[in-house]
Amino acid sequence: MTLRFGVVGTGAIGREHINRITNKLSGGEIVAVTDVNQDSARQAVEKYQLNAVVYQDDKTLIASENVDAILVTSWGPAHEGTVLAAIEAGKYVFCEKPLATTAEGCRRIIETEMKKGKKLVQVGFMRRYDSGYIQLKHAIENNEIGEPLMIHAAHRNPEVDESYTTEMAVVDTLIHEIDVLHWLVSDDYTSVQVVFPKKTKYAHNQLQDPQLFTIKTKSGIVITVEVFVNCKYGYDIQCEVIGEEGIAKLPEYSSIVLRKAEKLSTNILNDWKSRFMEAYDVELQDFIDSITKTGEPKGPTSWDGYVAAVTSDACVKAQLTGEKEFITLQEKPEFYCETTVSEIMK
Amino acid sequence: MTLRFGVVGTGAIGREHINRITNKLSGGEIVAVTDVNQDSARQAVEKYQLNAVVYQDDKTLIASENVDAILVTSWGPAHEGTVLAAIEAGKYVFCEKPLATTAEGCRRIIETEMKKGKKLVQVGFMRRYDSGYIQLKHAIENNEIGEPLMIHAAHRNPEVDESYTTEMAVVDTLIHEIDVLHWLVSDDYTSVQVVFPKKTKYAHNQLQDPQLFTIKTKSGIVITVEVFVNCKYGYDIQCEVIGEEGIAKLPEYSSIVLRKAEKLSTNILNDWKSRFMEAYDVELQDFIDSITKTGEPKGPTSWDGYVAAVTSDACVKAQLTGEKEFITLQEKPEFYCETTVSEIMK
Amino acid sequence: MTLRFGVVGTGAIGREHINRITNKLSGGEIVAVTDVNQDSARQAVEKYQLNAVVYQDDKTLIASENVDAILVTSWGPAHEGTVLAAIEAGKYVFCEKPLATTAEGCRRIIETEMKKGKKLVQVGFMRRYDSGYIQLKHAIENNEIGEPLMIHAAHRNPEVDESYTTEMAVVDTLIHEIDVLHWLVSDDYTSVQVVFPKKTKYAHNQLQDPQLFTIKTKSGIVITVEVFVNCKYGYDIQCEVIGEEGIAKLPEYSSIVLRKAEKLSTNILNDWKSRFMEAYDVELQDFIDSITKTGEPKGPTSWDGYVAAVTSDACVKAQLTGEKEFITLQEKPEFYCETTVSEIMK
Amino acid sequence: MTLRFGVVGTGAIGREHINRITNKLSGGEIVAVTDVNQDSARQAVEKYQLNAVVYQDDKTLIASENVDAILVTSWGPAHEGTVLAAIEAGKYVFCEKPLATTAEGCRRIIETEMKKGKKLVQVGFMRRYDSGYIQLKHAIENNEIGEPLMIHAAHRNPEVDESYTTEMAVVDTLIHEIDVLHWLVSDDYTSVQVVFPKKTKYAHNQLQDPQLFTIKTKSGIVITVEVFVNCKYGYDIQCEVIGEEGIAKLPEYSSIVLRKAEKLSTNILNDWKSRFMEAYDVELQDFIDSITKTGEPKGPTSWDGYVAAVTSDACVKAQLTGEKEFITLQEKPEFYCETTVSEIMK
Repeated sequence: MTLRFGVVGTGAIGREHINRITNKLSGGEIVAVTDVNQDSARQAVEKYQLNAVVYQDDKTLIASENVDAILVTSWGPAHEGTVLAAIEAGKYVFCEKPLATTAEGCRRIIETEMKKGKKLVQVGFMRRYDSGYIQLKHAIENNEIGEPLMIHAAHRNPEVDESYTTEMAVVDTLIHEIDVLHWLVSDDYTSVQVVFPKKTKYAHNQLQDPQLFTIKTKSGIVITVEVFVNCKYGYDIQCEVIGEEGIAKLPEYSSIVLRKAEKLSTNILNDWKSRFMEAYDVELQDFIDSITKTGEPKGPTSWDGYVAAVTSDACVKAQLTGEKEFITLQEKPEFYCETTVSEIMK
Repeated sequence: MTLRFGVVGTGAIGREHINRITNKLSGGEIVAVTDVNQDSARQAVEKYQLNAVVYQDDKTLIASENVDAILVTSWGPAHEGTVLAAIEAGKYVFCEKPLATTAEGCRRIIETEMKKGKKLVQVGFMRRYDSGYIQLKHAIENNEIGEPLMIHAAHRNPEVDESYTTEMAVVDTLIHEIDVLHWLVSDDYTSVQVVFPKKTKYAHNQLQDPQLFTIKTKSGIVITVEVFVNCKYGYDIQCEVIGEEGIAKLPEYSSIVLRKAEKLSTNILNDWKSRFMEAYDVELQDFIDSITKTGEPKGPTSWDGYVAAVTSDACVKAQLTGEKEFITLQEKPEFYCETTVSEIMK
Repeated sequence: MTLRFGVVGTGAIGREHINRITNKLSGGEIVAVTDVNQDSARQAVEKYQLNAVVYQDDKTLIASENVDAILVTSWGPAHEGTVLAAIEAGKYVFCEKPLATTAEGCRRIIETEMKKGKKLVQVGFMRRYDSGYIQLKHAIENNEIGEPLMIHAAHRNPEVDESYTTEMAVVDTLIHEIDVLHWLVSDDYTSVQVVFPKKTKYAHNQLQDPQLFTIKTKSGIVITVEVFVNCKYGYDIQCEVIGEEGIAKLPEYSSIVLRKAEKLSTNILNDWKSRFMEAYDVELQDFIDSITKTGEPKGPTSWDGYVAAVTSDACVKAQLTGEKEFITLQEKPEFYCETTVSEIMK
Repeated sequence: MTLRFGVVGTGAIGREHINRITNKLSGGEIVAVTDVNQDSARQAVEKYQLNAVVYQDDKTLIASENVDAILVTSWGPAHEGTVLAAIEAGKYVFCEKPLATTAEGCRRIIETEMKKGKKLVQVGFMRRYDSGYIQLKHAIENNEIGEPLMIHAAHRNPEVDESYTTEMAVVDTLIHEIDVLHWLVSDDYTSVQVVFPKKTKYAHNQLQDPQLFTIKTKSGIVITVEVFVNCKYGYDIQCEVIGEEGIAKLPEYSSIVLRKAEKLSTNILNDWKSRFMEAYDVELQDFIDSITKTGEPKGPTSWDGYVAAVTSDACVKAQLTGEKEFITLQEKPEFYCETTVSEIMK
């Protein structure tokens, strides 16, 4: 059985997923595309030699009987509408972050999905599919380090351009940490506080960089996350979980070891694509396989999209106030409690 | 375009490749299978829910018009016959090692392929597709360590069973080093000498373990390879290239880092499948993609199979004599000189 | 020339220094000892076969013409009186932490020393003599990582006994970080805030463990220090300085590397003595050498003792309030501005 | 008690030891010096402000009643005569390598010392005092890796000058490996073979560089030692012991870790002095302490000097013949069997 995808949004990330499904993964096929820019949609079909229909808009694409799953890779503000329509039509959805630009939007999606009575949506938080994070989660769940007490994380980019704002450190960057860290320790966030260290000379005028977030969870775990988007030296994701019996830390990038010019060195990557390329592959293959085998996706849910939205809002508020801000979630519906786990996590 | 495979041999490795092509990779399909044990062939079809015909033998399978490429995963002594027949029929071949059990057999394949006038055969030396070895090769070719002068390699398995003989240290184990190391430095072997260190108590009576091979190349590179198949602690592949300006070494297995019980540790694997699983995927995907896009496979050729066979013979002889044994290859035909390189290596 | 020491306090740490000066270092000699427990003083003389007079109290010992330098290793509350008397007598002082138990006490010492017109006092902050911290400081001063923006530090002990209180996490443990970190970045502290993560089950009832301190400096550097005194896995001191161009981190303990039982591991120490043993040696040798060659000690001064006291007070207050507490230092007197640096730092 | 040294040879290494004993270590004093260049001897006295008599030659220095121990740091060919005279006079000897330039010379020293009936001589093989090698030896003796089967070692210098010959790779460089490796595994050598890899362009015309030695021991351990004295990248000593249960490897140089310019790196040293500086200190302090406390030195003996000489001879012969050369030692006298071990090794 082949899962037939309709793609909404044929920009950079959309095309990457089209290529992935067409040329690298098994069991999926692009059969429909659309974009607000119809030319872009047509060019994508041509470039990847797709056997796919170009639709006028997301509504008609979703309505097509040939489409099983909607890949939402349009710009953020358009996500909510497409996702809601797809759910109403009973189609599967793979939606890149954000699920919706507001917590209210996410709540609407949750309600619609629950009313439909079936988990249909997966949000594109690919870190959960990274082999390093999976090893970390296994170590925690196998009690290799005892009860987690703290996490020290860092998200470092070599540089950003002038359009990157202080707030984007949360909504574009920290959001990946927000998703992956609560999943890692199976806990919920309760508060966040932000401190701004001395600003690097490489940050433009309006940008506060680096930033240091201190986040607390329901069970009392304290998480520090450094976000530093002009660190110059490379793209570097660090995560260290401090437990009662020991500490587990993400692997460094797997690199040959050089002895040269009085240095013993390994390479650090300089872009996020190389860092998470494999995770993107595994993520989409898992989406295809889980649906094909079990009838529902097993990755990050609409609820996870909602958690990310609420937490982001509090983090942005904390940037402005400098005070501790609380993160208040609705009660988690039974519907979203994990009963099964993807094969990939075993 | 989909590359249609016929599988000859549905044992363990055959089934792994069937699963890989069917459920993980893109662009290939299993349409035909055969095995000396017809029940095994039928069970494979059922298990992987293949839409494939079960043939009585390799000859009829090769003859099928629906088959583009033959996957040779039968037992070693049968390889040569199947490969020759496939070439005669103008079919592509992916053949697990050995290409043939004798150097003469390999020569016959080379001659047949050259007469056919087209590169059709790829031998299953998957190490060339391992990201660590690829990084090493790039480092050498980008002149990061200068001219290579020595290589120190080690191949360690946790343990082997009673059926593993001293000779198998060459034909089953060292053979992977033989293939990958001459490729790494783009050189040919000229001689080999073997020393037997003190034997581990974990080796059975007839088995000499560990063994130390010293191999020399045409340009004078000296390669030491330790083969140690009862090392107990894990499956561990080491390779360090010493150059005029510096040294490059394979990465260790990418593992989370633990601080626990007065140890700072990472994990070592204990089986070869996990170590090279990704390389197997990349290898077969490259076979499919290269043929689809360029009309010929770009991986290890029949010539590489011949080099491995001749070198193995010398290594086995060196085990018996304790003396330096020479490795004498025919002149390499123009036909096999690489003019193009797979995308994967770029 | 030999520097003649009088030791005030012959408990554990006092005896270690006696042994060090007598049997490991060059240029120093123990000629006088005293202790509130006269038996202890006499036993120390016997045990280390010292050619030393046992004095009745610190005053008479200080008064002795044979004594050049006073080694203050009595219990904390007694330090101030001994140090003041030694300064008045014009004797050199090596005083284990704390210089005095209150900031006021430290100020009295500073005033007395300034009135005397000569730097006489060195405080026993041995970390500045650790080769790892020295490498870090050199890296910063040689501009290898650009301007420092953040520091992430951790101080972990395997365990503490029932007598260890929440406050001692500051006055006994954090105090070493307090001293070494402002020295590292040549900056002063301005505020501190404390967060208490989930408590480890290994901490006794009254003890909050771990604790997380966020300290800010005048120039805006943000320092996070994790203090975790029941971490179980070992004695582990971490320090990472994040700069505008790169990051520098303390080395791990220098250990052989083991491959065993599917782990690649190095050893972690389990006690502070082994960790800083060499630093203690270098520290006291530098005290002896600096005085012998230049007439004054070059290590941590009375001013550094005062900085540690004021900062400790603010940290303890922050433990109680949970709020940001300010660290207010007097203007640093010209007298204590480093004009020369010890040879050891070059 | 102070051990009074007479120094024979006030060149570079002699002066380093003079400085070490005078300014860094405890319990030793330089009371006498001599040199074939009397000016050099006088200058050393002045430079280090020694309270020492300048003697005309080694004989008169040895005869002095004020001298307890002779430090032999003259040029190699003079060692034997001085050592013999010192033994005859019943004086302790610390002799830099070589003990004598021929195996026969070493035998004469052994015989003289045995006749004297007391171990008086220690040879300056400082590696046994390096904390890394001591950790390795402990790991082996505590059976952490099981029975040793192989050793892979490398000795790399950044460069050598035109005066360095192929033979010096043995007598100046390999000699340290020769001493430390048989001590490490408590075994004796039986044969050696040499292979010359492709020569680095950085080696001058007459110099074969690198060289690869394969040495076998009585119990069957196979040792490979790479000697590469123009490796350019740094001074690097590697040693890995492969045992039946696991592998133990020397630590890398303890360096801060840098993240900078897409590299994660530590520093490699570029000279041997920094690498073994601490070992030199510990070595001489142990010489002083062992004599002071037990009446005899506990370090490498005359027998070890003899083993090094015989093994060197075989290695040089193997360089010339390209064949396996045997290493034949006399029976080890009871006199030199270790009955006690230095404290430093516990």
